Amino acid sequence: MSPHSTSIIQWFQSLQDEICKSLEELDGSGHPFREDLWTRDGGGGGRTRILTGDLIEKGGVNFSAVHGQMPQKIAQSLGLNENNFLATGVSIVLHARSPHIPIIHMNVRYFETDQGDWWFGGGIDVTPHYIREDQAARFHQHLKTVCDLHDPNYYAQYKEWADNYFYIKHRDETRGIGGIFFDRLNSDINTLEQNHAFVKAVGSAFVPIYEDLVSANRNKPVEDNDKAWQAIRRGRYVEFNLVWDRGTKFGLDTNGRTESILMSLPPMAEWHYAYHPEGNPLAMKTQSLLKKGIDWVNYQSH
Amino acid sequence: MSPHSTSIIQWFQSLQDEICKSLEELDGSGHPFREDLWTRDGGGGGRTRILTGDLIEKGGVNFSAVHGQMPQKIAQSLGLNENNFLATGVSIVLHARSPHIPIIHMNVRYFETDQGDWWFGGGIDVTPHYIREDQAARFHQHLKTVCDLHDPNYYAQYKEWADNYFYIKHRDETRGIGGIFFDRLNSDINTLEQNHAFVKAVGSAFVPIYEDLVSANRNKPVEDNDKAWQAIRRGRYVEFNLVWDRGTKFGLDTNGRTESILMSLPPMAEWHYAYHPEGNPLAMKTQSLLKKGIDWVNYQSH
Repeated sequence: MSPHSTSIIQWFQSLQDEICKSLEELDGSGHPFREDLWTRDGGGGGRTRILTGDLIEKGGVNFSAVHGQMPQKIAQSLGLNENNFLATGVSIVLHARSPHIPIIHMNVRYFETDQGDWWFGGGIDVTPHYIREDQAARFHQHLKTVCDLHDPNYYAQYKEWADNYFYIKHRDETRGIGGIFFDRLNSDINTLEQNHAFVKAVGSAFVPIYEDLVSANRNKPVEDNDKAWQAIRRGRYVEFNLVWDRGTKFGLDTNGRTESILMSLPPMAEWHYAYHPEGNPLAMKTQSLLKKGIDWVNYQSH
Repeated sequence: MSPHSTSIIQWFQSLQDEICKSLEELDGSGHPFREDLWTRDGGGGGRTRILTGDLIEKGGVNFSAVHGQMPQKIAQSLGLNENNFLATGVSIVLHARSPHIPIIHMNVRYFETDQGDWWFGGGIDVTPHYIREDQAARFHQHLKTVCDLHDPNYYAQYKEWADNYFYIKHRDETRGIGGIFFDRLNSDINTLEQNHAFVKAVGSAFVPIYEDLVSANRNKPVEDNDKAWQAIRRGRYVEFNLVWDRGTKFGLDTNGRTESILMSLPPMAEWHYAYHPEGNPLAMKTQSLLKKGIDWVNYQSH
């Protein structure tokens, strides 16, 4: 492992700690995260933390740092030789009980080999059961502010990348309102520390972003048709994660820890043939906004 | 299209008709199948039929016959040139309301190219929420009887193929009690008509097999913990279909009709982190029996 790797790993661990603490406070139920420590046969392991609370119906905040000889499938997919590697990061998916509170996802990660390859990756994206344009604009402005402090090109690039990545091809719809997504971040002009600083900024943006989404929506009343629509949107979330998400598929195919990977799945979901949300105008508007290329920062409702 | 193809297509259509009629009677709600006719841009189309009944919570019985120039992805995956092709068949998945009635799946299909390639494929498999050994033995004996009338080797081969195919690798568990699965059936010693006769026998076995499973279980009382376990097993069904089922993945990746493909998904499913069915001995026994290689025909409960 490189000289930097210890401090990067420690930073991810402290990020997990801080986020879990903040989420327990936000949840307010007094239920703590359940923690499962696990080890990987080839080297390393992780800390899986799951919250079943009042506000948060099912939340996972996972840290892992795995190392050892690179499995063949991983080497192949990355176009690298089977040298020793380190992969570490934090992954989060939160499913709130209220259909008015969006599903949120964040992943920040670092990868290196003992041949000197290294890069960061990550992203934050939001999947509202109901899209509210003002909240979507605020979320994207928050990400743009974080990005702009590091590179004026990051937001536009990584926003487009998220639109293309969090896309349910067989439905021709995006998973939600996107966010940012980046991979193999290893800039020629920036040092590893500068790249790490950007990843730190993304990680640190998670809690304020989610707090804003929660406070804007937690007191909205929930009707039966809101729950029905939530179950449908959660089904689409399952479809994306199991059919298209490369990280999920890769983890399941390379003997990753199944329960940690699939913490991203919602507590429940429904599928009804050719479902249409008749009589639910906000659901119909949401469906019409699940597309790539919306300039949320400058969005004008119409 | 070959001279045989018209009669094969017609046979699949009449199989769909007969099975739908029998299932409406078995369901008893008086609700008919909803039918959606669809066409495919490149040629052909299908009849998707969906039942939302009293006994059957969500059932799909689909017929399709698509033809035209073979899409590149299909040609590649089959190791064929991009000639004209015909693919036709019937696909069924039934999710009953009662957790005591197993999920059942059948697919029978025929494929040909205008270069003279042709084969049949298909299978029936059963996914009980609760495995009852006597019923599993009866189901497999029924399939063995059907197979043995055509070839003494079919049952053993196709039962093993089903064990390997209907396998949730990331859980190291089978989807259910298996059944039979076969593909590229084009025997040197048998004529096309003889191969078709076997596929007809499989298709015709579907209704009596399902009727037996229904009559053995429909009057069993349903408790809350039965519904809870059903939701978990339905989640595993989703995992298999979206992560591992080649037919589903292929259909979604090659612009198939999404709503017809995903009729296989259960009406609802649940995912809870590291779930264990404590206090439900039949669920625990079921979990222990979700493995390959069980000789169900000769199974001795122990």
